[in-house]
Amino acid sequence: MEHLEELREKGAKARQAARQLAVLSTTVKNKVLLAMADALEKRSHDILEANAIDIEQGRQKKLSGALIDRLMLTEVRISAMAEGLRQLAELPDPVGQTLGGAVRPNGLDIRQIRVPLGVVGMIYEARPNVTVDAAGLCLKSGNAVILRGGSEAIASNLIIARVIAYAAEQAGAPEHSIQLIETTDRQAVNEMLRLNEYLDVIIPRGGAGLIRTVVENATVPIIETGIGVCHTFVDESADLAMASNIAFNAKVSRPGVCNAMETLLVHTAAAADFLPAMLERYAAAGVELRGCPATLQYHSAVKPATEEDWAAEFHDMILAVKVVDTLDAALEHIFRYGTKHSEAIVTASLMNAQRFQREVDAACVYVNASTRFSDGFEFGFGAEIGISTQKLHARGPMGLNALTSTKYLINGAGQIR
Amino acid sequence: MEHLEELREKGAKARQAARQLAVLSTTVKNKVLLAMADALEKRSHDILEANAIDIEQGRQKKLSGALIDRLMLTEVRISAMAEGLRQLAELPDPVGQTLGGAVRPNGLDIRQIRVPLGVVGMIYEARPNVTVDAAGLCLKSGNAVILRGGSEAIASNLIIARVIAYAAEQAGAPEHSIQLIETTDRQAVNEMLRLNEYLDVIIPRGGAGLIRTVVENATVPIIETGIGVCHTFVDESADLAMASNIAFNAKVSRPGVCNAMETLLVHTAAAADFLPAMLERYAAAGVELRGCPATLQYHSAVKPATEEDWAAEFHDMILAVKVVDTLDAALEHIFRYGTKHSEAIVTASLMNAQRFQREVDAACVYVNASTRFSDGFEFGFGAEIGISTQKLHARGPMGLNALTSTKYLINGAGQIR
Repeated sequence: MEHLEELREKGAKARQAARQLAVLSTTVKNKVLLAMADALEKRSHDILEANAIDIEQGRQKKLSGALIDRLMLTEVRISAMAEGLRQLAELPDPVGQTLGGAVRPNGLDIRQIRVPLGVVGMIYEARPNVTVDAAGLCLKSGNAVILRGGSEAIASNLIIARVIAYAAEQAGAPEHSIQLIETTDRQAVNEMLRLNEYLDVIIPRGGAGLIRTVVENATVPIIETGIGVCHTFVDESADLAMASNIAFNAKVSRPGVCNAMETLLVHTAAAADFLPAMLERYAAAGVELRGCPATLQYHSAVKPATEEDWAAEFHDMILAVKVVDTLDAALEHIFRYGTKHSEAIVTASLMNAQRFQREVDAACVYVNASTRFSDGFEFGFGAEIGISTQKLHARGPMGLNALTSTKYLINGAGQIR
Repeated sequence: MEHLEELREKGAKARQAARQLAVLSTTVKNKVLLAMADALEKRSHDILEANAIDIEQGRQKKLSGALIDRLMLTEVRISAMAEGLRQLAELPDPVGQTLGGAVRPNGLDIRQIRVPLGVVGMIYEARPNVTVDAAGLCLKSGNAVILRGGSEAIASNLIIARVIAYAAEQAGAPEHSIQLIETTDRQAVNEMLRLNEYLDVIIPRGGAGLIRTVVENATVPIIETGIGVCHTFVDESADLAMASNIAFNAKVSRPGVCNAMETLLVHTAAAADFLPAMLERYAAAGVELRGCPATLQYHSAVKPATEEDWAAEFHDMILAVKVVDTLDAALEHIFRYGTKHSEAIVTASLMNAQRFQREVDAACVYVNASTRFSDGFEFGFGAEIGISTQKLHARGPMGLNALTSTKYLINGAGQIR
């Protein structure tokens, strides 16, 4: 419990900051966001210097090229982070919005409004831009934030957090609105997960291992994000050219993200017309193919899929392919292996489209579009704190509203019960 | 882990039932609720017989009179339970409601609708009526439910669950929509709390000990309910007759419930005019009074309050009383000792009313009314599954909507990203 003191101290400070943030005006919050953006660009030289340390360490630790790329900052990427903050300043403030209300028969006037959650804990992995995104989103929604980034990005995160926290305070944000946990000891995460006295929610963003650790050990309420074993089902009646484009896009446009497709399901009546060309298109693009017995006959590049492949989030240029006899078989497969993130059907049948959307239990259920659209910006929220795969509080892409709670204001004239 | 098998089996069955419940029509669900109500009344004799066993056991275990009363069923109470189910049948079905939507610039049509949570776990204590309430609320909102009642009511719960589950199935509900855990071994609760594979949420209803156990051990998402250290602040400008009625009602009308007041805060400028008669009114009603040093001088019945008293949820005819110098001091006291449930100010000052409602962080913040109104029926929801004291998902009195999640339906014409 050696880091508990740092955590408890930061927690208590965040709790105080949250009280003031909850009643901070939108005007001041927006001014703060713009000041944070300017500070990032002004201090880009120092940030890049710190980032070079992380990159050097990462190379020594033989991190993969993909991981190094996610870690790497450039002038352009810093400007993009600043731009993100400026866009947040343009968004409507969720705090104070009235969600509903009524005057009861006894004259009590009840109104439900949006309020901040309070103190948000963010636990995330390599990408240093999450430090800026999370701080900006929490600030706009009136929350204090305690950030816990990955050890690979610690030098970058330390200076970024210092720069934006200082700029925020200078521009009128309460002291300690934005805090970063400075130790990279893993034990600090476990202690953070049980800091119920000070944290109202923890949002983990990262791989399956991180999410599992958080789910299994947190006593603080959490919003589970990101694990996506997404499917595309090509129905008997699908427009095959449309199906090919959707299925190709869902796998290939960005295979490392959670809304990418991992398994392609094809109706047996469409298989012979659809699969040979589709599989060739994947193979030519460098996608490794793992198929059910029926799939194997349509392309020589397909290797047999194992039971594990159906449940895998490959996060890579690998695709599992299965031929199914009916819509019911597709629904059954998705029920068994899906993670309730994003699921798609390509079909010309109104009845099958309706059944698919009604019966598939997932955050986002698509008809004739790519699962890759599951994203806060694509959904028009103007921001994204993550994609929730749980059913409580928020489900699917989360914008600013997901960082709020509600409060009932009840006005009377002496009513008693 | 001896009960894990019963739990996993019930979990898997509930998950299958939930798939069918999610698409069950409102008409059938309402028919099922009415059938459950009729069955309860028709089988009241058997239920009362089983209840007599629980009562007898409770007397042998020397349970308090209050607890025996909560355990006790009568023809009237069974009819009230049935009536509750009939009222649920009258309420609008939340499932399928459209919450919002838009067509994006690329033509994607995005719509957010309400869907059931899936499988709800209810863990509750002595009152057997919760078995009926929870089953009815879950059924109306399209959820399967796994019930875990207290050991004191096991005979009553077993027959009630059997009666309503059978009636539900006969009337068209999927098999296993309503299941009760039959063992009363406490270990089963711990196992239930980690049944993430099958449970979407656990709602505990009971005392502070139960809630703590659930918060500390659950890996399944939970909705924390019920702990209420509620305050009433009598401001300098308060109408003292109104203040007396509100403060009396908030404490005395039903001291054992979570929305009852536990601490009365009085502005120092109102103390001399307000407290002597108020304290006398409490004393005459049998309320035990524990006051700050300033309060002691106003009535001889007041004993000195300890630090623990300020944080206590007495659940009884006991009241802590404190004189404060300013609104700020009242806000500070509530920030320190409140549990964010229900807080009230009695005032004639618009500015102080506004500050109190803006700055107090609680589910329900009252101006000139009793905290006792924090209740799903009083709020007009027509039902109540509990009162959430957490900030995620639901806050304050929870009706049917609190038992739902959402899903995005996205309709395209071949869009890719």
